[in-house]
Formats: sequence, structure tokens, C-alpha cells
Amino acid sequence: MSGEAAFIAALRGLATHPAARGLADDCAVLRFGGETLILTHDAMVEGVHWLPGQDPADVAWKLVATNLSDLAAKGAEPVGVLLGYALDADDTRFLEGLRDVLATYDVPLLGGDTTGGTGRRTLGLTALGRATCDPVPSRSGAQAGDTLWLTGPVGAAMLGFEALKADDQAADTRAFRRPVPRLAEGRALAPQVTAMMDVSDGLLIDSTRMAQASGATFALDRAAIPLPPSLPAARIDDALRWGDDYELLFALAPGVTPPCPAHRIGQVLPQGPHPLLLDGTPPAGKLGYLHD
Amino acid sequence: MSGEAAFIAALRGLATHPAARGLADDCAVLRFGGETLILTHDAMVEGVHWLPGQDPADVAWKLVATNLSDLAAKGAEPVGVLLGYALDADDTRFLEGLRDVLATYDVPLLGGDTTGGTGRRTLGLTALGRATCDPVPSRSGAQAGDTLWLTGPVGAAMLGFEALKADDQAADTRAFRRPVPRLAEGRALAPQVTAMMDVSDGLLIDSTRMAQASGATFALDRAAIPLPPSLPAARIDDALRWGDDYELLFALAPGVTPPCPAHRIGQVLPQGPHPLLLDGTPPAGKLGYLHD
Repeated sequence: MSGEAAFIAALRGLATHPAARGLADDCAVLRFGGETLILTHDAMVEGVHWLPGQDPADVAWKLVATNLSDLAAKGAEPVGVLLGYALDADDTRFLEGLRDVLATYDVPLLGGDTTGGTGRRTLGLTALGRATCDPVPSRSGAQAGDTLWLTGPVGAAMLGFEALKADDQAADTRAFRRPVPRLAEGRALAPQVTAMMDVSDGLLIDSTRMAQASGATFALDRAAIPLPPSLPAARIDDALRWGDDYELLFALAPGVTPPCPAHRIGQVLPQGPHPLLLDGTPPAGKLGYLHD
Repeated sequence: MSGEAAFIAALRGLATHPAARGLADDCAVLRFGGETLILTHDAMVEGVHWLPGQDPADVAWKLVATNLSDLAAKGAEPVGVLLGYALDADDTRFLEGLRDVLATYDVPLLGGDTTGGTGRRTLGLTALGRATCDPVPSRSGAQAGDTLWLTGPVGAAMLGFEALKADDQAADTRAFRRPVPRLAEGRALAPQVTAMMDVSDGLLIDSTRMAQASGATFALDRAAIPLPPSLPAARIDDALRWGDDYELLFALAPGVTPPCPAHRIGQVLPQGPHPLLLDGTPPAGKLGYLHD
């Protein structure tokens, strides 16, 4: 057996506890004491999730921010992180970025582990949060008739990544280097939404996942999807397939208006032959961008 | 800045939340929902923590068991794990070992992440537990007059590692491949001990750490330290410096007897010039074994 899909399918057979949510959600949701704990763990690999030579302060920021984004999708308040760190020749900039992101979001560092060795480095982070509403939003609650929304543009991280790779000093690359977890938006939205997730792998692939989890078809209106002003028209299809923007995708019951700035990008239909329609037809090609 | 000691010292400056215990303990200890959550994260690196070519089922077992051992040192009941997994050419045996260890200790898999890429693989695991007594044992409570105890022998993992490296098919290598977290012992001991930790890096180095955390001197009686029957006398010094046995080291107030099988190996003295004495003198050389 090999391949990520096969491995995750096999893991699902082991993850039978309801808190695991079938490994089909952004986080585990565990009752503990009289409250609900939200748990997520993401790893980043050198050369896969960050560019060789990229500022380690940005790597630290992104490692924490992307995990906090998973908490945001549950409307959770962060309570702490555990770090799995692979030592580098110089760790100063990583520590600066870590201090920065923890202070910005007021998240305590609770513990972790450091490892040595040579070769490709892998960094891991576990983030813990406290649920702020019950039930905790999932990907699976969207219903026919709901409206679909996005908190902000997709494609800015793609432009940032490409500028960074091209060593374009004039470009604004922050969207790729320093993603912003939508924590305040997630908390405001959590009691209202019928389904929510963060867009980490690309709008089209993540919309498909939410539609499938909900047993529905999502119909997106291409012209309504927010995009960065600097995006060339020829790159719109790419922007819909790139990830790393960490905006929140959510569904609202008919007539409900979002409690925070958001863009209405489509609606939920009864389950049809295709989980996702873009301007009425299933989008062609790969729906999520594989970072290289 | 480089090096593990310098990095951890810098991290301590960030980990100011009391739940982090100054990063000087085996676990974070966090009040949550009216109960106490025990958290630990350990990573294992190919070629550092396991031998190239070693059975991935054993790697999976050890990854989970060593984290559960940290929970055992707090007397905690495991409530779940999150896995950070680097995909391999064939993941079947890893999954078998994972299923085995989770079933053996009745621990749910709650979530995690998988990563791809080539080169050195790193696996991470976060384990969560529920405290079973208050206060939760730490490394820092041992007091002059206390007795020092160990739940079982040290050196068996060293012999197992060496036999495995030498491809000695006749040898029993389980102590290295399949360490046993002392969960039941930890729970029984937690309300009784003045300090406790698991011996993961070597008895002498870990005793030194507990003595320093407690502001005391530990005096160990070499002849009283339990060793595997097959250990050659010439290897005793090595066995005291090797880790990976995951027995519990603990201190008891005078007159208190342990509620589980254990070996009395020494006593706690007022803080002297040396944190550790072995038969009355500070042990020479490196106190913890660096695995190669």
C-alpha cells in the first residue's frame, strides 16, 4: 500500500472515535471536562511547504498561522501550541518569527520537542483551542438553499509565492509568507454557519470537499469570487486552484447575513451528479494546486 | 545561535505560561474545562531514532509508546493522539504497528497530518492525557530524606539495540523495539510520589535532571540498580548511561512504600556541590548515551 489517499483511508479505519470526525474535518473535536477541546496538527517539510532559502521567521509564522487557521474554521479560541522543531545551522530567525506569531495571536507555547540530524527538515505543530459555541461547525452541514461565502480573496498567496520564487524584491509577498488566520471571523461566524472550513488547498478542491461532506452540490459564481486587484485575468483559473490563502469558506441558511465582511460566491443545491459547479458546469482539470 | 541547548534556552523565554512548566518537565499541564489536560509531543527522525531498515511496525509502536510514557510519568490516563506522518514507499507495516499499539493501550487516534517528499523522514506524535490526581507529579518535588526508586531495569533497550544492529536473530530485541509505557504504575504512583519522570535519556542524566529540578542531590547505590540478567558486568556503566528503557524514576517521602513493584536505588540528600552521586562520588564521563 502506498500513496497519501490510501494511507488516509487506512487511518480512517483506526480513527473510529467520534472526536476524530472520521479524519474528514480540519480538527478533532473532543469533549474534555465540561468544555470542548479543538485539536489540530500540521507538519511542514523543507522544499515542499517552504522554499529553500526562505526566511525562517516566515516559516515559523506560517507553521503557527496555518494551524490557527484550522482552529478559526471551528470558531475556536486558541489555548496553546506544541512545537516539533528540527534544529538548523542557525535558529535565530525562526525564534524571532515564532515570538512574533505567538505574540500577535496571544497564544502560549506549551511544549514540544527538538530533533537533530542532517538532511531534509520537517517541522510539526499541534494547536489546541477551546470551542466557543455548540455545536462546533463542521464541513458537513451545508443544505440545499444555503448561500456560500468567502471571507476574502484567493490567489494572493499564489502571486506572493511566484514573486518570492522569482526573487522579485518589489512585490508584496506577505500573503504567501505571513498568512492571517481568520480567528475573529471564525468566532463570529461559528454560531451562524451551517458548514465552515478554511481554504488551504485551493477554493475549488476545498469547495468540492465541503459539498461532498454535506451530501450536496455547490454552485459557485465565478464573477463573484473575490480576487486580488493585481491578479491578471489569465491567472483567475489558477487562483481558484491554488491554496495557502486561509480564508474561510462557509454556508449560511437562506436569509442569514454574515456577521463579518464576506463575499457571497454561490449557493448550495441538492446533490447532483457533480459535487461542484462553476458557472453551471463542473470545472475542468485539477481542482487543487500541487505546490512545487 | 545554534545547538539544542541554546535553542531550548531561547524557547523557555517564550514559554512563560505556567502550563508549560518552563519546558523543564516531560509534559505540559493545562487546566481545561474543570479538569487537567496533560500534553506531550515527541518526534522521531529516520537514522537518528530508528535504524534504517528497521520494521516500520516497531517504529509506529515506539512513536506512540514513548509519548504514552511521558503521560505515565504524570500519572495521566491517555485520551488520544495526533499523528504527523511522512509517507513512505510502503506504509502497510507502519499501520499494523500503529493499530497494535493503539489497541494495546486503548488510545484513540484523533487526527494529524501526512506529508510527502523525499529524503530523511520525520514522524511526530502528540499525546493527550487526563490527570488522575492533583497535584500532577513534576520533576521538582524531591526532598532531602526521600527515597529513590525505579520501576524496572535499565540497559535492556541498549542490548536490544546492539543485537538489532548486529542482526543477531537469536537475541530478544523487544526492549528496544517495543518499549512498554508504565501507565498503570504511573497512575498508582502519582498520588504518592514527591517527584517522578520516565528514564528516556539514561538513568544518570535523568537522575541529574530530577535532582537539579528539585534543588537536591541524588545519591544512587550502584549495586541496587536493577539490570537485565543477561547484561555483562563490563557493560553496567553503559547501561546506566543508555536511555530508551522508559522505566519510571520516582521519589517517595521517608517511610512511604511504593504501591507497585519497584526497586529502591538511592536516596535524596540536601543539595551539595554535585547533583548526582553514584556510590558516593560524582559519576565520570558522559551521563547520557547519544544514540548513533
